Amino acid sequence: MFKRSYIKINDIINVNNNYTVCGWVHIFRKQKNIIFIDLNDGSTPECLSIVIDSVKIKDFDDIKSRVKKGSSLRVEGVVIFNESRCCNEMIAKNIIIYGEVDAAKYPISKNKMSLETIRENPHLRIRTLMISSIMRIRDTLAQATHKYFSNIGCRYVNTPILTTNDCEGAGETFTITSQYPTNKDDKPIYYGSDKKELLGRGVNLTVSGQLHGETYAAGLGDIYTFGPTFRAENSNTNKHLCEFWMIEPELSFINFKELQDLAEDYVKYCISQVIMYNEDDLYFLEKRNEDLVFRLKEIVCEDFARVTYTEVIDILNNCDKEFEQKVEWGDDLSTEHERYLAEEHFKKPTFVKDYPTKIKSFYMKTNEDENTVQATDLLVPGIGELIGGSMREEDYDKLCSRMTKTQRKELNWYLDLRRYGTTPHGGFGLGFERLVQLVTGTHNIRDVIPYPRYPKHCTF
Amino acid sequence: MFKRSYIKINDIINVNNNYTVCGWVHIFRKQKNIIFIDLNDGSTPECLSIVIDSVKIKDFDDIKSRVKKGSSLRVEGVVIFNESRCCNEMIAKNIIIYGEVDAAKYPISKNKMSLETIRENPHLRIRTLMISSIMRIRDTLAQATHKYFSNIGCRYVNTPILTTNDCEGAGETFTITSQYPTNKDDKPIYYGSDKKELLGRGVNLTVSGQLHGETYAAGLGDIYTFGPTFRAENSNTNKHLCEFWMIEPELSFINFKELQDLAEDYVKYCISQVIMYNEDDLYFLEKRNEDLVFRLKEIVCEDFARVTYTEVIDILNNCDKEFEQKVEWGDDLSTEHERYLAEEHFKKPTFVKDYPTKIKSFYMKTNEDENTVQATDLLVPGIGELIGGSMREEDYDKLCSRMTKTQRKELNWYLDLRRYGTTPHGGFGLGFERLVQLVTGTHNIRDVIPYPRYPKHCTF
Repeated sequence: MFKRSYIKINDIINVNNNYTVCGWVHIFRKQKNIIFIDLNDGSTPECLSIVIDSVKIKDFDDIKSRVKKGSSLRVEGVVIFNESRCCNEMIAKNIIIYGEVDAAKYPISKNKMSLETIRENPHLRIRTLMISSIMRIRDTLAQATHKYFSNIGCRYVNTPILTTNDCEGAGETFTITSQYPTNKDDKPIYYGSDKKELLGRGVNLTVSGQLHGETYAAGLGDIYTFGPTFRAENSNTNKHLCEFWMIEPELSFINFKELQDLAEDYVKYCISQVIMYNEDDLYFLEKRNEDLVFRLKEIVCEDFARVTYTEVIDILNNCDKEFEQKVEWGDDLSTEHERYLAEEHFKKPTFVKDYPTKIKSFYMKTNEDENTVQATDLLVPGIGELIGGSMREEDYDKLCSRMTKTQRKELNWYLDLRRYGTTPHGGFGLGFERLVQLVTGTHNIRDVIPYPRYPKHCTF
Repeated sequence: MFKRSYIKINDIINVNNNYTVCGWVHIFRKQKNIIFIDLNDGSTPECLSIVIDSVKIKDFDDIKSRVKKGSSLRVEGVVIFNESRCCNEMIAKNIIIYGEVDAAKYPISKNKMSLETIRENPHLRIRTLMISSIMRIRDTLAQATHKYFSNIGCRYVNTPILTTNDCEGAGETFTITSQYPTNKDDKPIYYGSDKKELLGRGVNLTVSGQLHGETYAAGLGDIYTFGPTFRAENSNTNKHLCEFWMIEPELSFINFKELQDLAEDYVKYCISQVIMYNEDDLYFLEKRNEDLVFRLKEIVCEDFARVTYTEVIDILNNCDKEFEQKVEWGDDLSTEHERYLAEEHFKKPTFVKDYPTKIKSFYMKTNEDENTVQATDLLVPGIGELIGGSMREEDYDKLCSRMTKTQRKELNWYLDLRRYGTTPHGGFGLGFERLVQLVTGTHNIRDVIPYPRYPKHCTF
């Protein structure tokens, strides 16, 4: 049986017991014969106060000289409740210092640093309380995703990362090659030869697992993916990354209303799991995000708004707000329109649905009016588009008529799904980092993924 | 609330109730006034028998002409227990045919096809009972992985796919570029210029998340990764892929014994979850894998063997078996040795540990004898190496002495972990597809991942 030789700080419940804890010094205060340490072990943003008394600890002076912010310790002692400070503390009996820190060189030695500054040290920033709270919540959201879809009978499918398909051609793709440049002086190398490439030519990194996911939904019934996705776009914004994680469920035999119910249920479940499991982290994050928890609870408790694109055009053209860009039926909504709808008009997460056919992807199911498709975007206050989904056109002829000749050739395998036992089905894609931003109230997407990749940045 | 308009076949428990089911025709038998269909919906390898009686169903003749293997249906009816056949069946009241099949063209229309043949249609093969059973078990193993590590307080971390690090330099990497070839005639294109590349030069696909994982374990304490990994190796075997999924836990403050306990516990937990949740699938797979379930139960119930590399050399040199390759202390073990140990000598999963320093990676922790490292491989009958793990060298000077000058420069960030608050820690990597092979008894790794990528194969 696997069993740790120490207890995690988050698991300490009973006082007046002996425990061993391990972790890193977050804050310390040294007096002549006593040292106070706030020890963090990554299990919670809460630190355990350690009291080191020169009477009880031999090598007190040695320890005193070596304890710095960031040094790693194993401490054995008794945990008591300190009534005056109203928190637990450990009276140390034994201390081992595993690792020291040269405070003058330690890049994150200061107690208050901006997210921008610590972003320069992506390998160390998880040691800050802010990033570790965000990453614990990211973990809870990932666990919630697996629990939710598993509970409703969807199977987790790993669609390929290396693919010859670029889905809807929506974004620039990264091309891969198994050949190294032959020298480092920017000399041209031969690329793209069938003979030399290990996997053949034209292989790129996936921009979406949807089409592959559909093939699996046509056998397993209901599936979801959760994996990395790539866009080679030169976007330097606080909501775009070149590498991000996406969740894409695909369900057979459902209808458009059920698809929206699914998306709403899933988002609410994720948030409620964080409220249940990350109380300390949310409390910590709320210090710089007023009303974060209140806003999350509101999302869980209220029905999302559902409105058609056509109604949205009416709302936008009949409101008092002056937009920079006018919008007419048939136009794409821009960020200012989407923000107005979710943040000012409905003041809650809002499904916009039944978009004009011509501004949406070829695989989306046409409504009976033939001018609109059963597509929906979920717009969320502060985030913008969190989810994009649709029913898929299951009719072979209708689907073909929406595809170019090249598409029909390259996606002949996809057309097989409509040739053989086609079914009504639909799904959506959710950018996982945007969900983490929403739940943690984080402004910049680069702070919610361990190693952010964006133009000119691929650190380590 | 999300709610389906039909019930999954696997969820039908009560008989004499009215239900609606949706799925695909697996087998059919047509008589003059009655049609029997075995309907599969992907929730279980078990099909539901549907009885379509010309007296009860209008359009009987139309339906009769359109039902083929692979066509998709919605059927409403009453489920009764058929005593003579000893199984449930549904007496149809209403039928909708969603999608037909041209049997002459349908690539998987035959009832018995080899795995090799259906592999040629990776977008359709999930419709076979064999592949869908394997993929449901793959799903259970993924869910079990998240449950196991989450239960013991490890946080899920998404280490980057695009990276400038090739970990141990163990395998050939795929290089990525954001530039498309400018034409399709195999003309050379300019590659690798900092100015032209979106992410800068020297970016490749990850071969392991370990080093990045270690940085996060140094803040969160205990973490695990579960993501895609890439090797640009020209290996055409039944156990290698160019793209595969790997699970890499990394735990701070543990020791070498605890690391082996962890690996053993985790593997047993995964298998026991499949035994619990995939009884039907295992029963189905056992038809071509004698004693599959018995062998899995044995793995769960017995202690794994644990033996040092030095003991292994003794065993190999003093047994009756004639090996093609002699082995002396200091040599790498080859497949025949590993197979003999796990399959003939110990006859169970076997940890080989304390390997010679010179045949293992630079980051592995040196034992006191200085000739061996705290590394372990888990060898499993029929599979070979399932897990490779080690304690990591936490001492800055010792680690530096094992690295080349280039490594020390390129991995300076990794050395920061030893400069600032270093801790004892260790972890392992498990190739997820090998675990799926083990649990499903599947010979070829290409059949346990949805879209296998191997030399010259990157289909769709």
